[in-house]
Parts: sequence; C-alpha cells; structure tokens
Amino acid sequence: MKRNEITEQIVVARLAKGLKWQQLADAIGRPVVWTTSALLGEHPIPAELGTVLVGMLGLDESVVPVLAASPMRGGLPTAVPTDPTIYRLYEAIQVYGGAIKELINEQFGDGIMSAINFSLDLKKKSHPSGDRVVLTFDGKFLPYQWVSAQH
Amino acid sequence: MKRNEITEQIVVARLAKGLKWQQLADAIGRPVVWTTSALLGEHPIPAELGTVLVGMLGLDESVVPVLAASPMRGGLPTAVPTDPTIYRLYEAIQVYGGAIKELINEQFGDGIMSAINFSLDLKKKSHPSGDRVVLTFDGKFLPYQWVSAQH
Amino acid sequence: MKRNEITEQIVVARLAKGLKWQQLADAIGRPVVWTTSALLGEHPIPAELGTVLVGMLGLDESVVPVLAASPMRGGLPTAVPTDPTIYRLYEAIQVYGGAIKELINEQFGDGIMSAINFSLDLKKKSHPSGDRVVLTFDGKFLPYQWVSAQH
Amino acid sequence: MKRNEITEQIVVARLAKGLKWQQLADAIGRPVVWTTSALLGEHPIPAELGTVLVGMLGLDESVVPVLAASPMRGGLPTAVPTDPTIYRLYEAIQVYGGAIKELINEQFGDGIMSAINFSLDLKKKSHPSGDRVVLTFDGKFLPYQWVSAQH
Amino acid sequence: MKRNEITEQIVVARLAKGLKWQQLADAIGRPVVWTTSALLGEHPIPAELGTVLVGMLGLDESVVPVLAASPMRGGLPTAVPTDPTIYRLYEAIQVYGGAIKELINEQFGDGIMSAINFSLDLKKKSHPSGDRVVLTFDGKFLPYQWVSAQH
Amino acid sequence: MKRNEITEQIVVARLAKGLKWQQLADAIGRPVVWTTSALLGEHPIPAELGTVLVGMLGLDESVVPVLAASPMRGGLPTAVPTDPTIYRLYEAIQVYGGAIKELINEQFGDGIMSAINFSLDLKKKSHPSGDRVVLTFDGKFLPYQWVSAQH
Amino acid sequence: MKRNEITEQIVVARLAKGLKWQQLADAIGRPVVWTTSALLGEHPIPAELGTVLVGMLGLDESVVPVLAASPMRGGLPTAVPTDPTIYRLYEAIQVYGGAIKELINEQFGDGIMSAINFSLDLKKKSHPSGDRVVLTFDGKFLPYQWVSAQH
Amino acid sequence: MKRNEITEQIVVARLAKGLKWQQLADAIGRPVVWTTSALLGEHPIPAELGTVLVGMLGLDESVVPVLAASPMRGGLPTAVPTDPTIYRLYEAIQVYGGAIKELINEQFGDGIMSAINFSLDLKKKSHPSGDRVVLTFDGKFLPYQWVSAQH
Amino acid sequence: MKRNEITEQIVVARLAKGLKWQQLADAIGRPVVWTTSALLGEHPIPAELGTVLVGMLGLDESVVPVLAASPMRGGLPTAVPTDPTIYRLYEAIQVYGGAIKELINEQFGDGIMSAINFSLDLKKKSHPSGDRVVLTFDGKFLPYQWVSAQH
Amino acid sequence: MKRNEITEQIVVARLAKGLKWQQLADAIGRPVVWTTSALLGEHPIPAELGTVLVGMLGLDESVVPVLAASPMRGGLPTAVPTDPTIYRLYEAIQVYGGAIKELINEQFGDGIMSAINFSLDLKKKSHPSGDRVVLTFDGKFLPYQWVSAQH
Repeated sequence: MKRNEITEQIVVARLAKGLKWQQLADAIGRPVVWTTSALLGEHPIPAELGTVLVGMLGLDESVVPVLAASPMRGGLPTAVPTDPTIYRLYEAIQVYGGAIKELINEQFGDGIMSAINFSLDLKKKSHPSGDRVVLTFDGKFLPYQWVSAQH
Repeated sequence: MKRNEITEQIVVARLAKGLKWQQLADAIGRPVVWTTSALLGEHPIPAELGTVLVGMLGLDESVVPVLAASPMRGGLPTAVPTDPTIYRLYEAIQVYGGAIKELINEQFGDGIMSAINFSLDLKKKSHPSGDRVVLTFDGKFLPYQWVSAQH
Repeated sequence: MKRNEITEQIVVARLAKGLKWQQLADAIGRPVVWTTSALLGEHPIPAELGTVLVGMLGLDESVVPVLAASPMRGGLPTAVPTDPTIYRLYEAIQVYGGAIKELINEQFGDGIMSAINFSLDLKKKSHPSGDRVVLTFDGKFLPYQWVSAQH
Repeated sequence: MKRNEITEQIVVARLAKGLKWQQLADAIGRPVVWTTSALLGEHPIPAELGTVLVGMLGLDESVVPVLAASPMRGGLPTAVPTDPTIYRLYEAIQVYGGAIKELINEQFGDGIMSAINFSLDLKKKSHPSGDRVVLTFDGKFLPYQWVSAQH
Repeated sequence: MKRNEITEQIVVARLAKGLKWQQLADAIGRPVVWTTSALLGEHPIPAELGTVLVGMLGLDESVVPVLAASPMRGGLPTAVPTDPTIYRLYEAIQVYGGAIKELINEQFGDGIMSAINFSLDLKKKSHPSGDRVVLTFDGKFLPYQWVSAQH
Repeated sequence: MKRNEITEQIVVARLAKGLKWQQLADAIGRPVVWTTSALLGEHPIPAELGTVLVGMLGLDESVVPVLAASPMRGGLPTAVPTDPTIYRLYEAIQVYGGAIKELINEQFGDGIMSAINFSLDLKKKSHPSGDRVVLTFDGKFLPYQWVSAQH
Repeated sequence: MKRNEITEQIVVARLAKGLKWQQLADAIGRPVVWTTSALLGEHPIPAELGTVLVGMLGLDESVVPVLAASPMRGGLPTAVPTDPTIYRLYEAIQVYGGAIKELINEQFGDGIMSAINFSLDLKKKSHPSGDRVVLTFDGKFLPYQWVSAQH
Repeated sequence: MKRNEITEQIVVARLAKGLKWQQLADAIGRPVVWTTSALLGEHPIPAELGTVLVGMLGLDESVVPVLAASPMRGGLPTAVPTDPTIYRLYEAIQVYGGAIKELINEQFGDGIMSAINFSLDLKKKSHPSGDRVVLTFDGKFLPYQWVSAQH
Repeated sequence: MKRNEITEQIVVARLAKGLKWQQLADAIGRPVVWTTSALLGEHPIPAELGTVLVGMLGLDESVVPVLAASPMRGGLPTAVPTDPTIYRLYEAIQVYGGAIKELINEQFGDGIMSAINFSLDLKKKSHPSGDRVVLTFDGKFLPYQWVSAQH
Repeated sequence: MKRNEITEQIVVARLAKGLKWQQLADAIGRPVVWTTSALLGEHPIPAELGTVLVGMLGLDESVVPVLAASPMRGGLPTAVPTDPTIYRLYEAIQVYGGAIKELINEQFGDGIMSAINFSLDLKKKSHPSGDRVVLTFDGKFLPYQWVSAQH
C-alpha cells in the first residue's frame, strides 16, 4: 500500500476509533504537531513508534516500513489552499511575507529561517476578547554561505 | 501616484537614507512587523504617522492620503513565492498545514485562526546550535457560527 | 470511507430516494443552506443529526463519525468554476469585488466581512419582470486589529 | 487615455480630494455600489453623469466618452483574489457554491441567477456580537430555455 | 452511479449499439444538439425521455433520476481545449471575441448574449469550394439592468 | 509603434471621434465583424483600406504598414475570459463543445470546422420575449486527410 | 471500455507481444506515423483495420467500434510536455514559432499551415557527425478567407 | 536597450522600410529561418552580420553587441500559443508527439532529436489540391548516454 | 500493468523487503543514481537487468518488457516541486539558472549542457561544519549548430 | 532605481563595455558563479565590492546601497523556464529529482541538501567525445530536526 493510501486509512480509522491526535502523540511520547503531521504523511515514523500507532489505529502491520520511509512531502492538493483554516496561513504569508523577509535580513543578515531545523508549536491562549490560536514557527537562522566541500 | 509606485519609492528611499525598519517603527511607536508590512503596502497608515514616515524617507507629502487608504493587500508576485526566505514559510504550510488544521479543530472546535484579529511577532533567540528565528502567529479563534443580522 | 466518497453517495442516494434538500433540512431542524452545504461536505454534521440523515438516505452508519469531523473545505473542482450557475457568483465578484471592498472600508473601516461568523440565505422573490433569486451574505465585520495573546 | 489608466487616476484623485464614494454616488443620484463599481471600471457611465464625476474628481473632460463606453469587465488581477476582503467572497463561493446551485435548482428549476439583470446591496447592520456586513445579491432567475429566433 | 460515470457508459453504449445521435434525438423528439449535449452530461433529461434513451442504450433504469437532475455543467477537461475540433471554437473566440463584444454593445447597448435563454443549431451547407459547418448561436440579449426584488 | 499600441490608440480615437464600428466598416466596404476584429488587431488591413481608416480616426500615417502586416492573433488577456459578454461564448463552448464535436463527426465525418476559411455574422433578431443576438459561425469543413506534398 | 483505457491496453499489449509499430503499420498498409498516433488514441481506426490490429494485439473485439469513433484528441498530460523527447518539439516551437509564422506570411500570405490536411513523416538520415531525425510537417496552406455559406 | 526592446524596433522598422525577411537573410548570406528567428531574438547575431542588418533597418549601432550576445530564448508570450499559425504547430505536437517519441525510440533507440544541433527548413510546395507548407525539423539523434567527464 | 503502476509496486516492495537502492544497483552493476531513477520510471531497464531486479523485488516477470521500454519521462507531480528535498534543486535553478547560462555562454560559446549525454553523481563529503551533499551534473556541451541532413 | 532595473542596466552595460563575467569576478576576488548571480540580482553585493563593479560598468553610484540589500530572489520569468540552456537543468530535476531525494535519504537520513549553505561550481572539462559542462551543487546536509528555541 502506498503512503497516501495509508494516510487515508489513518484519517478514517482515527475517527472510527474516536481517538484524539493528542492521545496518539502521548502514546509515543512525541510532540502533537509532529505526530499529527507525521501521521498525515509529512514525516517518517520510526518503526518502533509506527508499530504502536498502527496497533492503536488497527491498521495492518505491513504498513510500518512504509511509514518509516522518508515521504514525498507537501500535502496540499492545490498550490493555493482552498480550506479556510489552512488558507488563513497562506493569507498571512501574502500579507506579512515581505515584512518577515525584510526583518530577518535586518536582524540576522542575509539568509533564511530553516524549515528543516524547525519546530512548530500550537497553543490555546485565553484573552478577554476570546481564545487565541498561537502558532510558533521556530527555525534556525541559516545565513547565505558560499561553502564548498573542496578545501 | 498609485500605492505600489509609492511602495517602490519607499523601498529605494529607505536604502538610500540608510534607515532601518526598526528606526521607522520606533519613530511612530508601532510594532516593527506592523510598520514594515504597512510600508510595504499591506496596511493603511494613519495620516499622522504617514506624515512622519514620509518626512523621514523624503517622499512627497501628497502620498500621505494614499498611504492612509485601505490597500489592495496580497503582495507576492506569484502564487507560490520564489524568494527562498519567503518560500520557507510556504513550505511550512505545505508540510504542517494539514496538522495545524486538525489540531485547531481538536483543541478549539470547528473554526479558524483569524488573520485579521491577528498579530505577528519576530524574535531572535540564541541557541547552542545557532540563532533561531522565532515567528509567532497569534490570531483569535473564530468558530464557525451560523449567525444572521435578521432576528 | 473518505468524506468525498460519502458525499458522492449522498448525492446519488438523495436522487434515488427522491428527497428534497428542504426535507432533509426540516428533518434535522437546520437551515436549508447550511444542511445542503454540510451534506455536500462543507460542514461537520453533529452525530445526532448525522444519524437522522444517514437513516433517511439509507447510508451505512459507519459514516456518521466521518460526517461529524471538520471537513477539508473548498468544494470546487477548478479555481474558476465552469458550471454556469456557480460561475455567475464568481462573475459577480469579478465585477463587484473591488467596489464591495471599497465600501466595506468606507462604511466600517479597514477590515473584512467574516466568512466564518457568517450565514447565507437564499430566497425566491416574485417581481413583475420574473422571479428573482435573492442571496444574502451576512457576515460579521472584522476590523484589522493588532492583538496579541501576550497583552 | 485607456479606461484602466483613467481608473487609476480616479482612485488617486478621490483620495487626494478626500471624497467618499457615497458623495460621488449622491452627486449623480445612483446607488453607491453601482457608482463605485462603475468608477472602478466595471460599468459604462452615461456622459451626463460622467461629466459631473469628472468635474468633482478634477479629471480631464476628454475621459468622459471613454467612461461612457462599455468597459472590458472583470477587474481582479488574479483568478483567485489575494486581497483578504475580496477573498472572503471567493471563499464563500468555494464553501457554499455547490449548495446555492442545488437550492436554485430545487426551488426554481434548472437555471441560474442572472448577474446581468442584477443588483447588489451592501448594508451595515448592528448585532449584539458586533456589526455585520449584509450583502444582497439579487438577480433574476433565468431558466434554461431552448429558444430560437427562428420560431 | 454518478453522472459522469453514466456519461462514460452512454458514450461507449452508443458506439456498441451503432446508434446515431440523430436517432436518439428523433426517438425523444428533441433537437439533436440539445439531445447530444444532454446525453454528454450538460442538461437534465426529464424522466420520461430518460427512460426512452436508457432503454435504447441498454443502461440500468436506476440512472434515470440521476439524468433528470440538474448536472454540474462545463464538460471540458482543460481550460483551453486540446481537441482540434473543439479548439477551433475557442480560437474563434480568441480572434473574434473582442469584436463580438463591441458589436453587441453597438447594436444592442451594454449587455450580453444569454447562454441560458439560448439555442444552438448546427447545419451542413454545401458550397462550391466545399461543404461548410454553420453553427448558429442564438441567445436572448440581456441588457445590464440594476433591478432589485425590493422595488 | 507596435500593433498593440496602435490598437489602443484606435480604441480611444474611435470613442473620442464618436464613430461607430459600422461607419468604419461602411467606409471601406467590408463586413462589420471583419472590420472590427481587424481594427482590434486580429486581421491585417490592406494599405489602401488602412489609409482610409487611419484618416477617419486621425492616426499617424506611419501606422498603415504595421496595420497591413499579419498580426500576432489571439486577443484575450486571460485564457478564460473575464468579461461577461465574452465569457458567455466561452461558456457555450464548455456546455456545447462536446456535442458540436460529436455532430460534426456524425454529419461530416472525422474533421473540423475551419476557423480560417471562416466568416462570422452577428444579427439582431426580434422575438416576442425580447431581442436576440444571433451569431453565425460559418466555417469550411476540413476532413482529416493524410496528404503529402511528395505524392 | 473507454478509448483511453483501450490505449493503455494497447501500449502494454504491444510490449508484451514484442510487436513493433512498423509491423502493426505494415499489417494494415498505412503509414507508420499515422498508425502509431491512431493506436495512441489520436485518430479513428476504420473497423476493418481495427479488427486486424485488435487481433494482433490480442484485445477484445468489442473495442473495435470504439477505436472507429472520432477520438477526443490531444494526448499530452500537461500543457508543457515534460518528457524530454517530446519537449524538444515544444522547444523548437518556442524558439522558431515566431519565425515560421513570419515566413509563412511572407511566402504564402496571411494564413496558416493546416494540421488537418496534414501528414507527418519521420526519417532516419545518416550524417558524418551522427544519425539525424528528420521530421517533415507537411500541411496545406490555408489563407484567411472570409467565406460564407450564404450566397 | 534590452534585447526585447530591440526586437520590437526590428519588427516595426522592417515593416516601415518594406524589407522582406528573405532580403535580410540574403544580405548576410544566412538561411532565412535562422535569420528571421535571430532577428526575433532567438539567436545571437555575430557583430559583423549585426552591423549589416542594423544598417539596413536603420537602427542605432549601439545595439550590435546586444544582438551578438546569447539571448534568453523562448519567445512565446503564453505557454500555449494563441496565434492560430503558431498554434497549429502546438496542435501537431499534441496529436503526434506521442507517436514521434515512440518511433524515435523504435528506429534509433532510447533518446531524443536535438533542438540544438538542429536546422529547420520551410518550403512552399505546389500540390493539385493547393499549395503546401513543408516544414523540416532536422535534428541530430542523441542517445541517452551515461557519460562522465571523470572517465 | 502500466509503467507508473509498476513504479508504485517497486517503491512499496523495496521498503517491504528492506532493500537499499545501493544493493539493487550493485546487483546489476550500474551506478546507483542511474539505477534509482530507472526504477522510479525515468530510464528503460534492459531485460537482463530487469529480470534480476524484478526477482529481488518479488514482482511479476511480465513487467520486464514494460521496464525495458523507453518510458514517458518527467516524474514530478507538479511543475514546481512541493517536496522540500526536491524543491531545493528547483530553488538553485531559480537563483543560479541565469548565472549558469551566462557562464556556459562565456566559457563554451552559445549552446547548452546536454541532459541526455549526461551523468549525475551524488557524493557524501565530510566538512568541519557538517556533512555535505555534493551533486555533480556532468553533461556534454552542445553548441547551437545549424546542421542539416541535406548537407 | 529598483533592483531589477539596475540588473537590466548591468546586463546592457557589460555587453557595451565588452567585459567578461570572469573579469568582473576577478576584480572583486569572488567566485565567478557567485559574482554573476549577484550581478543578475540574486545576492546582495557588499558596498565596497559594489563600488568597484559599478565603476567598471559605468553605472551611477547611487545604486550601490540597493545592490547591497538582500534582493527578492528567484529570477526566472516563468515557473518552467523556456530558455533551452536553463531548461536542461529543470529537465534534470524532472528526470533525476526523485532519485536524488531517495539517495540523500538513503545515504544521509531524512533531510535535504541546503541551497543556502551552498556553493555552485561550473567547470569546462575536455573529453574524447567533446567538452563537458560540469556543474557541482555542493550543499550542507540538513537533517530534519525538531528543535525549539525553548529547549
């Protein structure tokens, strides 16, 4: 079975079993954002953790090595996301992307925020005018460096 | 002069004057991410603040009312950004967008993180393995609600 | 079974059973626009309502928890709709979108009409020159506000 | 001068003169949504009204016949709008377009809501949980009819 | 079975049975362009006619109510058609679309040719230099009218 | 001056002079659809006719040889037209393109309707339910033929 | 079975049987480019020839009438081909398309090379610096002619 | 002046001077297809030839070194060409591209026809049923070879 | 079975068997980049090698002739790759493509680096600041040459 | 002056002055690939180096601070490059991208080759069958690491 077919099975099995993403994350002792994105096909899941998750979800054990392989990442079906919850993230990049670039360059120098040496945290914070979603994108600054293996 | 022509003038004038975005933000007492995105054409700039900024940048005063108008937002020239610094944000949405949606739904219910009642913070954090860019997307949770003005 | 496969079953089952969308909405006591869009995969359907609908349509009960989950929204197969009935809505945005933006900004200030705290009503009105479709988009005004959970 | 160059002049002149769209509409006695969209290049403006508007905005009189011609409509720079205020309308079509089609067909028969024999109204309505934008799309129902001039 | 699956069955069944589109149209007493496009999924087919056609084509009777529903129209697989026969129509719009618009506006006023109150006829005409395809697009002129149900 | 710049001058000059397309066509004794599309940049205009038109429109004589050259055809700014008047033609192809292909094949054999050996006529026809736009696409049938110059 | 499913069967069956395209063409006495493109779904195959080919390839006889119908042409899965062998043809059009147009216009007048009254030949020619692929596109010149069936 | 601005000047100057592409090619003793595509910006023009052409066309001598540089090739304004003369070439690739690939592979082995070691010839051939455009694409066969400089 | 279905089987079988790409390459004595890309569907695999690989992976022998055929190359599902590992290669072309072109032209003359007479090597090199991926693109320089078979 | 306007000036000035990219690189003591891409707008150029280059090219000194700013990177005008020299790099990614990903994952683990901590070298190597372009992409391996500033 291909990874994206397994992902579809995971999505349906989780709902059928009434499991929360948090429960799945707790069962393997990993952060919930990491666990969710891994189960949605965006990160490899080490076999020992995969075995636990596959057991909880009632999937076939043969999927464990497929889950353990580096997946073809990039899960959105269209270049511009149509789901409103995901679109708002895209909109924030449309509106603030230019400013983020300018300020990374001003405060760190010419370079980027890594999306590989990276973690993402999602918190619920209360506020007088209503609960807030607080997403933290936390990536290593990588300066443009003209480095060569040859020296 | 149209807003995007003014933006181009701002970009060049800031470099010619050797001004930092932080200095411009400090001069008007507003957060630096807000100030930068506003000067890049993504937010209206109240006339009294616009006058200060226009003065610092040496632009013509006639641009103040244009800066004060609600702009046509969405500043990226292509649907998928090509600049590497901005692309990494898009990549994070490709990789983590699905998980963020699932977890907002799990922790808050069916709804979205607002990109309007929203702030964005950029911090430089030191770390043993190198400085980190920490971006905080902070938006009000908006539950799907079937509300009508008629009742 | 995945949500979009369930949607396809709903579409065919409704026709086979000769049920009207209005009858389905009445059976669960929800507005007909909400009910129809939910059955087409755009809103989660609470399990107690889902059970009623699934019964009427003769679907398998195992789909109830899938219908109750937040769906991946955005149901059009192409970015620009090709169906004439839906295209007219897109055309109205092409022709009037700019004006709507200007007038929201003029009458409410800088901000948007929410599509989340939102309801949509469809009425048939008679008129000497022929019946009219009257669609009411009714969304909360959300002003751009730079709010942070760290107040 | 081409129509879209005139539109750009109108946009800047209105801000420079501090005129509201409502004032411009009142001056010519036409609905404000119509007036705004016409000035943004989406409707022809009869010469006698165009003369008034051109005078208020301080434009050259030579633009009056260009404003009076049927324009090339469709004003959005990208197929999917990037501005958040306009995007919400597009999102509503993504989420509710399928349901609207089903209900027009159920209540009126096979056909469409005209976007030509059409008016659009924008109202500000107060509500305990905050002001609401109420947009009314009001179009004549057009049934699919296989009519020929050669009857 | 979904409408587009039924369409595929119709296409193959017609060839297998060796039926002409004209024969199918004659059997139900409707114009051949209408009948062909309806069988290709672009118009609802009233149940009494659908029953006849389904019988001739040897399809299952359960498809009759699906054929009778308003279909999701817009049958081309790509925005720009690749089939040469269909592409020539698109090319004619690329080459003559602007002129048609100008002349509709000049002869009728600001408005459109309806594609809903519309019929299309295809004739074979002989000519000294070779047979000609004569397509007649015949649609009601719809003037832009700012009409409201709240008159 | 390039052809498309000349086209823009023609469009504005015609409005400024208050000339109808029909008057321009009459002045050179050519069909009005041909004349309009030629002036919009879709056909070469023989120098003797170009001289007449350029005179009527008050353009510089140097444009005559440019008007006489075969133009780069295909005048729509987007693959899917956004202007409603032109879009209806595109919609007709989406809805009826498949049927037209089937019927050309059934009545003529495997081949196409030429868009080169082709004329297009636009007529205003009265009808009890309102005036109708009648567009006739009249093209030579071209059968697929595997012909080689090396026979 | 639909035409594109039959095409897939042909592709696999030919490899399994170890048949060359030339052998298939010889068996029906048609040019090899025509035969190959027809078997790949781009031309109808007359029933008597289809019967021979279906026999050689071991397909079911029921596909013969589907092969004999005018297919929906245009076989590339993306607008810009990604396969290098096919891409080189596209590249040649990108680089030489403008020149070909100019020279057709200069040598023949305003018009096109038909792709319908057309043949294509592929030859292997030896050359001191290596074998060459020589493709001959041979199409009838079609002058733009404003011809009407009506006279 | 940039290359594409020079190209625009060449296009207009040639028409104004009434020069044929053939005359320009003859003046420099190069094939006419090569000369035309080079002048349209698709090949570098050696300075000694560029000087001749610039003189004939009456352009400024300063453009000679720009014409002599390798240009950014790929001259079509859209991925799918809209001009009918050029589109027919694209259509031929859509219809015959797959067959050409199969036959190159069958007759030469796995590889491509080069578009670099390549020439293109355009001939006018007479034929009883009308003149024909004969285009010869003549490219070196390049077999896929896994060659390394580190042999 | 079609080539892309075989590729999917290969991907899953390799993981299930716990085989490394290097082991598969060693078994057939071919470079590992070549072997991997061939197994992913980008190169034909000679039957004697295909038999070995099919045996190791436990696939059906009937796939050997399909693997031996020239495949339809170009394996990425979107024009701009979404997987981060592959995207970085695309990004390098966005950032350095223009420079590479200029320097190939400066050092070799007008022409290209072949992607057909080409090899690609991937090495792991250690470096004080961390291991490096060293990719060598090694292609024959092909000068633009106007060569004809008819010399 | 904006960065892309400066780039256009650099391109023309270099040709007018007859300077090689290598000479410009030597003058500032930087690698030629880096220098070329920086001058083409893809890297910031430190002011002291910018002053040298601006002097050699005869540009205005006011451009030095603009050259020193982090540019908006990503220089290709279309998502899929049309220039043949650059396209071959894109083609290599289409054909080998999947294999490169698999082998990076196999040899290094789950992660990417950085395009930021990266250098690119272009060498001319002679070979019995013709000179070769050898491009070395040399980037630091970045393993996926879930690191947070809040350690």
